[in-house]
Amino acid sequence: MNVETKLKAAVLGASGYTGAETVRLLAGHPRVDAIAATGHSLAGKQLSEIFPHLAGAADLPVVKADDVDWSDVDVAFGCLPHGTSQDLIETLPNHVRVVDLSADYRLRDADLYAETYGRAHLNPERTATVKYGLPEWRGAALSGETLVACPGCYPTASLLALLPIIQIIDPDSVIIDAKSGVSGAGRGLKEGNLFSEAAEGLHAYGVGTHRHAPEIEQELNLQADRSDIGVTFTPHLIPMTRGELVTCHVRGDVDQIQAALAAKYADPPFVSVLPPGSPAPDTRHVRGTNNCRIAVYPDRVKDRVVVIAVIDNLVKGSSGQAIQNLNLMMDWDETLGLSGLQALFP
Amino acid sequence: MNVETKLKAAVLGASGYTGAETVRLLAGHPRVDAIAATGHSLAGKQLSEIFPHLAGAADLPVVKADDVDWSDVDVAFGCLPHGTSQDLIETLPNHVRVVDLSADYRLRDADLYAETYGRAHLNPERTATVKYGLPEWRGAALSGETLVACPGCYPTASLLALLPIIQIIDPDSVIIDAKSGVSGAGRGLKEGNLFSEAAEGLHAYGVGTHRHAPEIEQELNLQADRSDIGVTFTPHLIPMTRGELVTCHVRGDVDQIQAALAAKYADPPFVSVLPPGSPAPDTRHVRGTNNCRIAVYPDRVKDRVVVIAVIDNLVKGSSGQAIQNLNLMMDWDETLGLSGLQALFP
Amino acid sequence: MNVETKLKAAVLGASGYTGAETVRLLAGHPRVDAIAATGHSLAGKQLSEIFPHLAGAADLPVVKADDVDWSDVDVAFGCLPHGTSQDLIETLPNHVRVVDLSADYRLRDADLYAETYGRAHLNPERTATVKYGLPEWRGAALSGETLVACPGCYPTASLLALLPIIQIIDPDSVIIDAKSGVSGAGRGLKEGNLFSEAAEGLHAYGVGTHRHAPEIEQELNLQADRSDIGVTFTPHLIPMTRGELVTCHVRGDVDQIQAALAAKYADPPFVSVLPPGSPAPDTRHVRGTNNCRIAVYPDRVKDRVVVIAVIDNLVKGSSGQAIQNLNLMMDWDETLGLSGLQALFP
Amino acid sequence: MNVETKLKAAVLGASGYTGAETVRLLAGHPRVDAIAATGHSLAGKQLSEIFPHLAGAADLPVVKADDVDWSDVDVAFGCLPHGTSQDLIETLPNHVRVVDLSADYRLRDADLYAETYGRAHLNPERTATVKYGLPEWRGAALSGETLVACPGCYPTASLLALLPIIQIIDPDSVIIDAKSGVSGAGRGLKEGNLFSEAAEGLHAYGVGTHRHAPEIEQELNLQADRSDIGVTFTPHLIPMTRGELVTCHVRGDVDQIQAALAAKYADPPFVSVLPPGSPAPDTRHVRGTNNCRIAVYPDRVKDRVVVIAVIDNLVKGSSGQAIQNLNLMMDWDETLGLSGLQALFP
Repeated sequence: MNVETKLKAAVLGASGYTGAETVRLLAGHPRVDAIAATGHSLAGKQLSEIFPHLAGAADLPVVKADDVDWSDVDVAFGCLPHGTSQDLIETLPNHVRVVDLSADYRLRDADLYAETYGRAHLNPERTATVKYGLPEWRGAALSGETLVACPGCYPTASLLALLPIIQIIDPDSVIIDAKSGVSGAGRGLKEGNLFSEAAEGLHAYGVGTHRHAPEIEQELNLQADRSDIGVTFTPHLIPMTRGELVTCHVRGDVDQIQAALAAKYADPPFVSVLPPGSPAPDTRHVRGTNNCRIAVYPDRVKDRVVVIAVIDNLVKGSSGQAIQNLNLMMDWDETLGLSGLQALFP
Repeated sequence: MNVETKLKAAVLGASGYTGAETVRLLAGHPRVDAIAATGHSLAGKQLSEIFPHLAGAADLPVVKADDVDWSDVDVAFGCLPHGTSQDLIETLPNHVRVVDLSADYRLRDADLYAETYGRAHLNPERTATVKYGLPEWRGAALSGETLVACPGCYPTASLLALLPIIQIIDPDSVIIDAKSGVSGAGRGLKEGNLFSEAAEGLHAYGVGTHRHAPEIEQELNLQADRSDIGVTFTPHLIPMTRGELVTCHVRGDVDQIQAALAAKYADPPFVSVLPPGSPAPDTRHVRGTNNCRIAVYPDRVKDRVVVIAVIDNLVKGSSGQAIQNLNLMMDWDETLGLSGLQALFP
Repeated sequence: MNVETKLKAAVLGASGYTGAETVRLLAGHPRVDAIAATGHSLAGKQLSEIFPHLAGAADLPVVKADDVDWSDVDVAFGCLPHGTSQDLIETLPNHVRVVDLSADYRLRDADLYAETYGRAHLNPERTATVKYGLPEWRGAALSGETLVACPGCYPTASLLALLPIIQIIDPDSVIIDAKSGVSGAGRGLKEGNLFSEAAEGLHAYGVGTHRHAPEIEQELNLQADRSDIGVTFTPHLIPMTRGELVTCHVRGDVDQIQAALAAKYADPPFVSVLPPGSPAPDTRHVRGTNNCRIAVYPDRVKDRVVVIAVIDNLVKGSSGQAIQNLNLMMDWDETLGLSGLQALFP
Repeated sequence: MNVETKLKAAVLGASGYTGAETVRLLAGHPRVDAIAATGHSLAGKQLSEIFPHLAGAADLPVVKADDVDWSDVDVAFGCLPHGTSQDLIETLPNHVRVVDLSADYRLRDADLYAETYGRAHLNPERTATVKYGLPEWRGAALSGETLVACPGCYPTASLLALLPIIQIIDPDSVIIDAKSGVSGAGRGLKEGNLFSEAAEGLHAYGVGTHRHAPEIEQELNLQADRSDIGVTFTPHLIPMTRGELVTCHVRGDVDQIQAALAAKYADPPFVSVLPPGSPAPDTRHVRGTNNCRIAVYPDRVKDRVVVIAVIDNLVKGSSGQAIQNLNLMMDWDETLGLSGLQALFP
């Protein structure tokens, strides 16, 4: 491979966890060089002052987005909060491809975006057509795209489990009981995320109101060619840093569901379906990787089935999937920079 | 109070967590003295050698059950594993009241017991009539009883949330997604309970097969005067020591459900129902106490409701409830020995 | 006891951890009623909105300090940060007794205070004579005092271990390697205290510069009637919420050291010295209590000895000791409100 | 690189953590293929049944050591407990190179081995001359060796910090206060390693008696050409899975110490010395990597210095260092299979 062919990447919002994780993973990517890391309040520091684990391996100066020479940038990873993300992305020159990890371009319906995120979208026409980057489902469509919206962490796990079966289950039966590690809440300073308040206990949050529910519904309805599927989505904050598990309670035939999932994911590199009777998948088994593991269990109540999926929220649920999306946008092997990741256990 | 009136208690199986917790709580009970602690392999040691936190406050020599002078014992707390528990309880003299924390006398149907726990019951007639000690529901009936079966930890939280509403919800809609700390698995030595394998991740277990499901169904059916209610029960092992949270997904009217729960628990000392719109209950808020907190949330899908309950699995889910049951068997104030417990936070 | 004789207490700074813990413990005190809780940014809320674990048991409205009717207050617990604490305490009317948990009145030398805490002391003459409330050492002297300075959490554990032996060890040999749970850092919002950054790892901090070192030295020098004792003090942040352990490396005779500690703490209710050869004391064994456990070990190197002490930083290291100090100021049994606390294990 | 040139490796004792970690790391090594994994009680299973995180990436059938065709094996990694390790290694055919991760060949003096580990050594002559595989110190000497003893995890961190300075500090001053995650205790089943008993607290262990102390002393004495250096070594069990931190308290000149460490580790790929004034090194910053970070701090007491080193106990403290040693035995680049490891944070 020719070094000259490497893409030059900017990571927008590198002082958060998804930004740092993107920088970390790019350091192992053979065809991309991270050349800029942006931050606002931390501009002027080295990234390794904020994240010492990056020292040596993947260090960069943090600069303000305004100070980036965009003419030198081929691709930008948007690791900013929703709102802030579109504000910057809409100002970037056309030649900069964008992989956006925020929520800003996930919802096709700008009114739903406004209702869900509490502000008008800057570019309703663009968000209506942006590709939703769940590679196992939209992979082929990403080739050549200039802006891809990465799914939220919960939607990633939920949709990988539900999209293959939404047409063979009772669509009104979907209950997603979700559990996430605290890193999913980002690096923002809130009492509830302090160690002393997030360790040794758990609670639900956003019951009936979490913003990832409309995103999950959008994709399920698209897949089922309907518009009326609603899901119960109840997330819980778990005293662990990384990892996400969704427990999907549905009505359907357990054998059909197992078969549909196994068929769908017979080949792709990152998603695997466990054989019937397997021990339940564990977030520890995918920690640090771009993998998703799915298992299907018959319930004791007839025609109820439990489908469980686990991911690392910062990799497959965020930065890893973003890189997988870039690979597909560029028509590269989708595993570039990701195939060497091994689960860290114990 | 006359010291001579104190009951003399034996704790059977004091070398497990529920045994140690019972000894600890009895040390603060004004009308009970723990005078014997039994154990098998650890007999001959002081309890404080096994559990140093009991040194000074609540120490006892551990003796074999065969070596206890039962003539001196008024009440026995059964903290043994199922099976082992009935084997000993059935040999105790008649004058010894028993509060059994094991599963042995929870199921009225001995055939269901045999199917669920893999062995025949020693005394099917007795188990058919033993009182199920969920004090907020069976409290009045416990007066004068000589054997009471304490509910399992999951059934305690689940039933406190569901019994008041089972007759106003769709009884075929009950999905209980449960989460427990690792102490719920007891002190038995298994790789999965090692810190290195239980920290920083989570998984479901016993999906569709957990032994607490038939127990929950028994009580819901009794309450609803039916026999066909089945529940989906999916427990998860959470990286925390104490605490249990059940997320109950049901179909019904949210206002009716809130009202029924609030009415039922307007008075009792330990169970409280949060006002509508409250932050979700957290296991940390009941840690170390005999309390249960319940909250009700409307789901985004019409007529679906989420009811969440939290307890400390070792107190309200086990040893604390056992003492509450003893208080009721003796016609004492049900809060004796329990009212001073304060939640330890952070 | 006459209800009219109850002291009325105000807790200054109730929205931090030591404030909340003081309110919690006072709820179990037979001779004190907490009647006011002050806070600045959170004034107007109920305390239970900030700390739901206090709901029911120990709730109070949070008010600004300016809005407290001090004529009705007998005693104030100062749970504010250093600096802020003296600013308020110096304005209180004379009839209000004060137990200050901050660092403001711990150092007798106002110049050392200024150097250590970066600001001039408002009342150098007062701090020069305020009693240092380590009850096992200054207990008798506290009777009738109107202002007592509670020791820091690290000094509490360190001094309980070292004061009885400072005159029989090489005073130039003292190395204190200390470990604290994250609650010791308080409720302030810093990235390093987020669960995601404080779990699953550890680091030292304040190496060679921690503010508790001069406090430890002051008391050791007073006890040894010297002025030149210096200590190495190296604290570490441990991924747990509560608990503090100090490992003191000294030169001396192990038998003399064991004997001196055992003699000193033969009687007091809260401090115990383990017999030689005991398993090492564990912070879990004192969690939630006002206890301190100390153990002595011979090192493999001749004449080196390791003395280990454990406390709960929020109880004996802070709020519990404050209440113990109040008891002594009032000539009450020093265990009032504290004797019923039991260690929560597991 | 020619596939035919790959070494064929057997991992002895693959059902423990160091065994699994060795298999995991070998999966990323370009010149080694793991072809056999041995286990005793678990023989007959797939390794991925024991360690699901290895599924796909690095799976092997577990076989008894007796059933391995040694003629096909080039190198064996000994991941067995001490004692068991030499019992097997001494039976291997001569052509099998051995990298032993156990303690069996670390001590040159077989009498000291017997005293420390409680059994006679099978091959005192061999252990007297086996190379001690601390690559940054014995690297050049490992070329062509057929048996290398990997240092213990604590000695690795301690010696990397102390070997460069032992000749410029007071050799009688060395106090090592060490902290390890629970994975350092291995996968053996003990109550103290259960999550419920290892979370949310800490304690010291093996005070004055830990087996790693003689190993550290052996190497320090060799380096200083003395025989009388003794060290205080006090390890603590920390509620985290991976990671090890040693806090070394020494007497010497801080600038000399900083300079000596910086000079020694100016070049090697894995060990780095932080600049003066850096935030203290954190185990999280090396998690999952073969790195060691060292920092030097002046103490407040004159001529006392604190040197802190952090490693991942399962990588640099065990399996990673073993692979680094193999690379050196084979005259390969010592970073093969290890250079791509990135610290997982948060």
